Amino acid sequence: MRVLVLGGNGFIGSHLVEALVASGTHVRVLTRSGQYIQPLHGVEYRYADFVADSASLAESLVDVDIVIHLISTTVPATANLDPIADIKGNLLSTVRLLQQMRDQGVSRLVFLSSGGTVYGDAKTIPIPEEYERNPVSSYGIVKVAIENYIAMFSSQHGLKSLVLRVSNPYGPRQGHLGVQGVIPTFFQRIIAGEEIRIWGDGSSVRDYLYISDLVSFAVQGINRDLAGVYNVGSGQGASLKDILSLIEEISGRSAKVSYLTPRGFDVKKVVLDISKARKALDWVPTVSLREGCERYWKWVKG
Amino acid sequence: MRVLVLGGNGFIGSHLVEALVASGTHVRVLTRSGQYIQPLHGVEYRYADFVADSASLAESLVDVDIVIHLISTTVPATANLDPIADIKGNLLSTVRLLQQMRDQGVSRLVFLSSGGTVYGDAKTIPIPEEYERNPVSSYGIVKVAIENYIAMFSSQHGLKSLVLRVSNPYGPRQGHLGVQGVIPTFFQRIIAGEEIRIWGDGSSVRDYLYISDLVSFAVQGINRDLAGVYNVGSGQGASLKDILSLIEEISGRSAKVSYLTPRGFDVKKVVLDISKARKALDWVPTVSLREGCERYWKWVKG
Repeated sequence: MRVLVLGGNGFIGSHLVEALVASGTHVRVLTRSGQYIQPLHGVEYRYADFVADSASLAESLVDVDIVIHLISTTVPATANLDPIADIKGNLLSTVRLLQQMRDQGVSRLVFLSSGGTVYGDAKTIPIPEEYERNPVSSYGIVKVAIENYIAMFSSQHGLKSLVLRVSNPYGPRQGHLGVQGVIPTFFQRIIAGEEIRIWGDGSSVRDYLYISDLVSFAVQGINRDLAGVYNVGSGQGASLKDILSLIEEISGRSAKVSYLTPRGFDVKKVVLDISKARKALDWVPTVSLREGCERYWKWVKG
Repeated sequence: MRVLVLGGNGFIGSHLVEALVASGTHVRVLTRSGQYIQPLHGVEYRYADFVADSASLAESLVDVDIVIHLISTTVPATANLDPIADIKGNLLSTVRLLQQMRDQGVSRLVFLSSGGTVYGDAKTIPIPEEYERNPVSSYGIVKVAIENYIAMFSSQHGLKSLVLRVSNPYGPRQGHLGVQGVIPTFFQRIIAGEEIRIWGDGSSVRDYLYISDLVSFAVQGINRDLAGVYNVGSGQGASLKDILSLIEEISGRSAKVSYLTPRGFDVKKVVLDISKARKALDWVPTVSLREGCERYWKWVKG
């Protein structure tokens, strides 16, 4: 099996590529840069801009059995600032990918959707996959549109797809500049002695998933030819305040915190119902939030 | 109240503009061409391409209280052929409109969504507004994304919006080249002695709404400052075979029909639950399918 990982050098991609290589899979990576990890032995790297360079994408698809699409040009916190760029960089480029795959006869796709944004302000907690999708942010709106196009290409052109509605993944290599993940951001700010800014009162709850648990689900799904839409999370909720005190405890430092006016596009609570994922594979999240934060802390301290 | 009608010279737009003018509203129209009706006295016409010409759009928004957005660059039957063009022509241009309205302080919008495509293959008939949106065609996917952006601009930027999920509107001036509406298409083909082509076995059911009933809902909604999402249909279903025999009866001619393989993106049955619309306004559809077809036939015969 030959796998093309779009964004294979990003936070999630780099971990996934390592795991795929370890499981003996032939991996090709399309990436803009060598941002996260040094090139791995046995992995074929293609350096190109996924959004702008469709010729390189077409070339990268040659002899590929399955595409794992992890590229996002935006993050939930900033996509609203420029929805036009969000649509162009993510929706248009992904529809082009689907067309290109169809034209080149590549029939399997794994897509990273967003369990944290596609449902919007859900009234059912934990949220099952069949819950209606009412996204309230550009990031979520675009993910829903992409999911819908994937379903359309599945029913009309025979695409076999696995959509992972991932909650808040975290772990080593994740960006910590305040837009990508709260756990790295909080840790880095507490180390630097900088103020931690929280939108709202710190009660907002998310479902944090350690990167290795996400990777193990994805690798099993790929190897066992899983198809469909799956929530991939811990199934547990933690508030920003929970995260803060855990980080203070683990780092042994106390945080300076300022609370800001809540943002309109931040939903109050997201916890994913992961029973479908658990039933589909021999999979269960194994790294608790405390252990994941401890691992991240060890990694940061080098 | 000053109203800007985007697409005010199209099939729906031209009827709506006539009704607004008759109710004493000041109307400005943005249109590419004078396709449907001669310029009406008292209406201000601006000729420009909504998708490509954002400067003309900005100019058209000056001193406007409410925008009625009826422009679609695609139709359900053809949007799938080029989803990229569908996204660019409809989603991107509408998000630009929302941004432009926000920047220029125009706070009211009426948007024409699609009751026939946003729900996909619904299991509940008739379909209420709160039914989940699982579109199976590009046309529906784009309409859902636009609805979501409108909701986002409403909650974050104070936009007041009225979204009309219209079923299959029909009536005089509707295109009859086989892509816009089955009723005009069937009538024109039977007149020309041409074959009528039906995808599937003719059992697929739609909710047909005569244009004057759609217009009366929209005008009342505009004048009474209605906001929210409403199904606007007849609440009744008719199959393609029903339509065919009605048209044969009214025209007194018999149709030559060929049945083609069903298209993957055609849902089996759409009938809208219109109880929310009925409760919100003193509105009820008044033109039966038979009467509407008779009126169309009279109009065609001149």
